[in-house]
Amino acid sequence: MLWSQSFLKTSKTDPSDAEIPSHKLIIRSGYVKKLSQGIFTYGPVFLRSLRKLENIIREELEAIGSQEILMPMVQSSSVWNESGRWSKMGPELLRFKNRLDQDCCLGATHEEVVTDFLRHDVNSYKDFPLSVFQIQNKYRDEIRPRFGLMRGREFLMKDAYSFDRNKEESIVAYQKFKKAYQNIFDRVGLDYRVVKADSGAMGGSLTEEFQVLAEIGEDELLISDGSDFAANREVCACLPNLEPPTQVFEKEELIETPGLESMEALAEFLKTDVSNLVKTMFFKVEIEEAKSENIAVLMRGSDSVNLLKLKNVLGALQQPQALEAHEVESEVGSPPGSCGPKGLEMRIFADQNLKVFKSCFVGANKKGYHLSGVQPGKDFKIESFNDFRLAQEGDPSPEGDGKLKLIRGIEVGHIFYLGQTYTSPKSLNFNYLDNNGKAQIVEMGCYGIGVGRTLQAAIEQNHDDKGSIWPKAISPYQVHISWLDPGDKDTSEWLEGFVSGLKDKGIDYFIDDRKERPGVKFKDADLLGFPVRVVLGKRGFGNNEVECVLRCKNEKHVATKDEAFDLTLKLLQEAI
Amino acid sequence: MLWSQSFLKTSKTDPSDAEIPSHKLIIRSGYVKKLSQGIFTYGPVFLRSLRKLENIIREELEAIGSQEILMPMVQSSSVWNESGRWSKMGPELLRFKNRLDQDCCLGATHEEVVTDFLRHDVNSYKDFPLSVFQIQNKYRDEIRPRFGLMRGREFLMKDAYSFDRNKEESIVAYQKFKKAYQNIFDRVGLDYRVVKADSGAMGGSLTEEFQVLAEIGEDELLISDGSDFAANREVCACLPNLEPPTQVFEKEELIETPGLESMEALAEFLKTDVSNLVKTMFFKVEIEEAKSENIAVLMRGSDSVNLLKLKNVLGALQQPQALEAHEVESEVGSPPGSCGPKGLEMRIFADQNLKVFKSCFVGANKKGYHLSGVQPGKDFKIESFNDFRLAQEGDPSPEGDGKLKLIRGIEVGHIFYLGQTYTSPKSLNFNYLDNNGKAQIVEMGCYGIGVGRTLQAAIEQNHDDKGSIWPKAISPYQVHISWLDPGDKDTSEWLEGFVSGLKDKGIDYFIDDRKERPGVKFKDADLLGFPVRVVLGKRGFGNNEVECVLRCKNEKHVATKDEAFDLTLKLLQEAI
Repeated sequence: MLWSQSFLKTSKTDPSDAEIPSHKLIIRSGYVKKLSQGIFTYGPVFLRSLRKLENIIREELEAIGSQEILMPMVQSSSVWNESGRWSKMGPELLRFKNRLDQDCCLGATHEEVVTDFLRHDVNSYKDFPLSVFQIQNKYRDEIRPRFGLMRGREFLMKDAYSFDRNKEESIVAYQKFKKAYQNIFDRVGLDYRVVKADSGAMGGSLTEEFQVLAEIGEDELLISDGSDFAANREVCACLPNLEPPTQVFEKEELIETPGLESMEALAEFLKTDVSNLVKTMFFKVEIEEAKSENIAVLMRGSDSVNLLKLKNVLGALQQPQALEAHEVESEVGSPPGSCGPKGLEMRIFADQNLKVFKSCFVGANKKGYHLSGVQPGKDFKIESFNDFRLAQEGDPSPEGDGKLKLIRGIEVGHIFYLGQTYTSPKSLNFNYLDNNGKAQIVEMGCYGIGVGRTLQAAIEQNHDDKGSIWPKAISPYQVHISWLDPGDKDTSEWLEGFVSGLKDKGIDYFIDDRKERPGVKFKDADLLGFPVRVVLGKRGFGNNEVECVLRCKNEKHVATKDEAFDLTLKLLQEAI
Repeated sequence: MLWSQSFLKTSKTDPSDAEIPSHKLIIRSGYVKKLSQGIFTYGPVFLRSLRKLENIIREELEAIGSQEILMPMVQSSSVWNESGRWSKMGPELLRFKNRLDQDCCLGATHEEVVTDFLRHDVNSYKDFPLSVFQIQNKYRDEIRPRFGLMRGREFLMKDAYSFDRNKEESIVAYQKFKKAYQNIFDRVGLDYRVVKADSGAMGGSLTEEFQVLAEIGEDELLISDGSDFAANREVCACLPNLEPPTQVFEKEELIETPGLESMEALAEFLKTDVSNLVKTMFFKVEIEEAKSENIAVLMRGSDSVNLLKLKNVLGALQQPQALEAHEVESEVGSPPGSCGPKGLEMRIFADQNLKVFKSCFVGANKKGYHLSGVQPGKDFKIESFNDFRLAQEGDPSPEGDGKLKLIRGIEVGHIFYLGQTYTSPKSLNFNYLDNNGKAQIVEMGCYGIGVGRTLQAAIEQNHDDKGSIWPKAISPYQVHISWLDPGDKDTSEWLEGFVSGLKDKGIDYFIDDRKERPGVKFKDADLLGFPVRVVLGKRGFGNNEVECVLRCKNEKHVATKDEAFDLTLKLLQEAI
């Protein structure tokens, strides 16, 4: 493709609403253009990357027998009512009425639609295993779209769904998809981790995320340095810390602690380690619809609560909310810094790490006072001990070997074993007759890849201050030719032979034939970030010199006219 | 692909809401499935046809230098307000508010969005010519979706847009697209006509439709039997008929005509030809917003009014409405069957064929009476003579050679020269600097293909009572193999060699390996309608016989094992 015949306009200025490098780069490179907040048009050059990624995805999913379909974006409420999600989904599900006053929504996900698509026609044990996928626009009515394609309103997803006869076969399907996803992200050339995750609004139990490592990633991940354990921090289990406190506050005593409202200040005052103290926190939890309860949670002073663990242990409908200071005061009678378990009227839960505490140093529920020697069982009742702790870097890996390291990632894929969440008679009622003629409920899994998001994550992981560094598998073009003297006869002839060689090898190329200064061309080539750049100028050419640049290392090589082609192939081999 | 590993379920019963053969066939074949009225999921087999058609479209548009982009489906109102279409578009444009209370709509067309996409970056005469296209879902909130994919709510379109420096270059782009469209529909293998059309809500002047010929087509087309003239009947011009009436009613006279309210009854009573009489019709027309006027239109008794011609001649905002009988009576004082031009207080227009009438036989504006010898100019004033007549089969072709023939078509493509409708300062203001540094307004064209509709039109044009007859270029698979004894060793070995030969030639195939009776397999093969069917049964095979069927002719051929491959290739050549 000649730049002069292509619609591509680069820009020197960062867009004002971009916070992260990849967002700036996709706009400055003219790859995408914003129509409105969180809604973008893909330009022709970026669309090439999209097609390459789509093809990789297609090939790997077809290799595991999944079949492509295409479902609608506009969906009637009826199937969403059957699953109960019409009312359960938040305002991210954009609901509207069509001109016949029928409730509709824009597809944010397709579990209901795909189940409805199959349930009438699939009814025999011989019809399984069965899985389908689509690559399609989705819409989520984000209140604050940001980070370009990372958190947009309209976005491209690949979503797949597996259907099986029983849990065992459904788990087999899950593992097949996991392997296919690994193949996909391996082929794309990204540094990623598969991490344990939370199933959230999707339902189901077994679920993992595919996280592309990047400094600005929205997700915190904990990975073991001694095994392949990896988990999203929000679900990372903690091993119980069975070390007893280094100091035990046995003596029953009311101690004046004026103004000492933080754990750290208290520990300093007591000349002890913060982990020897016990902190008391209060949360509002909704266990049943529209019915909430206040509870207390006790933690070692050095630990933080993981709200998702709390939610899951309590079976809460929403993430628990920490009580505000004034709510604590009206509930307990003292400000948060002086609260403790003794005398509380609410249910009290404790982190598993408190099992080794026989006597605790806690707030006295009286402003400016703490109590020493408060004993669980005697002075207050603990509902249960559970793992409520937010895992930390340096923790032992919960599955054994190694210590945890904290890294950040961008979620580009998510796989779920859903079980019968959408197929049970209480939901869309998708069943089949087994080989004894008995009706059985279908087991389901779902599998997503953020397609646009993966492209941007590739740039987020691979860029420098000059521009993008595309992995070759999804780069819009593999070779960028900066032709410094477009129209010049000698270089033109050589170029013709050069690109015809590339064509024969199936390598795509982009020729900058604009009438621009070399400096402009080099800056744009770095910005666009295709793997290998060939610089072809009349002067160098006269000296039998062609320059080849490996973008990922910013390495310049000079070749003769005869060597340039082979050098280009070699550098392309070395490119990420 | 093995049927046993593919998700495809056929059905014997026609869907209750299907009125036309192709709608019945796409549902019965399991090609698509309805989610709700006018909204469908494409199954994996039909999706193959879609991809083939998309690729043909892509190749032909890229060959004329058009570049693929991808625009969003959810669009903010701002660009639609700039063009003025936010208020002008009817309820087919589905408008809604997002959670931030911002006005949005679902893209029914993308003139505004594409103009906005380009107008900021394209600003020099060097940037032209420029054209882009996309293949994407659109939504039109049809009040009564019908005919399957033909008139759906959510539907797949290819839309393209050209941008040029002036009208001449824009017309060149229009002609290039026209040729590309001809290549596309030629390659698809459809019998179609390019016909003159009306630009409707799109604006612009030069416009043609691509109509696939089919008995049930919603559009009436008039084509010349002596030239390549073809027009949608709604815009087909009429040559003036300069033959004077065969009988002239010169004598001024009031004639009692009790109960003779139709032209035919009147002609019979007068023992004359209906074309010698003049009929008077009344219409309400809206020339300015919310301001309507009643007018009269005079036609020869044998002619009908073309409402679109009337609208265009008068410059009306909407299609004129014929007055109801009671409206005529209260306006004129007599029922429609006795009305005439003499004494009317409204503007009177006449069809060009009335120029040769010196005296007219018309209604007397008195119930049960007509007037003879009424003279234009003397007894009433004619505002203007125009071509208001609805063209008929048998008319002389308006461009000269031949007579018109009436056929029916399905509109699958529409091309428009738009001029400055969307680019002028009154609209989205898209301009560029010419080579003298002077700002000029960009000229635009737009070009649509109904992608899903084309697939169904292919079936509508090519089917019999057994099922579809796919043109080979877009058939999901080219060869259908009815394997009567799946698992049988001898046929299995032969089949392996046979399909490996097909693979080498790039021919795709579908093997019916279900455990079903031969009759079921043959019925389904006819229903699915792939071009060539190979019947492979143990018994025939034992007699060294393999049957090959050319679907489009329902021709059966018997070959030996050795000949079957070459025969398959030969039949595929012959297939449509």
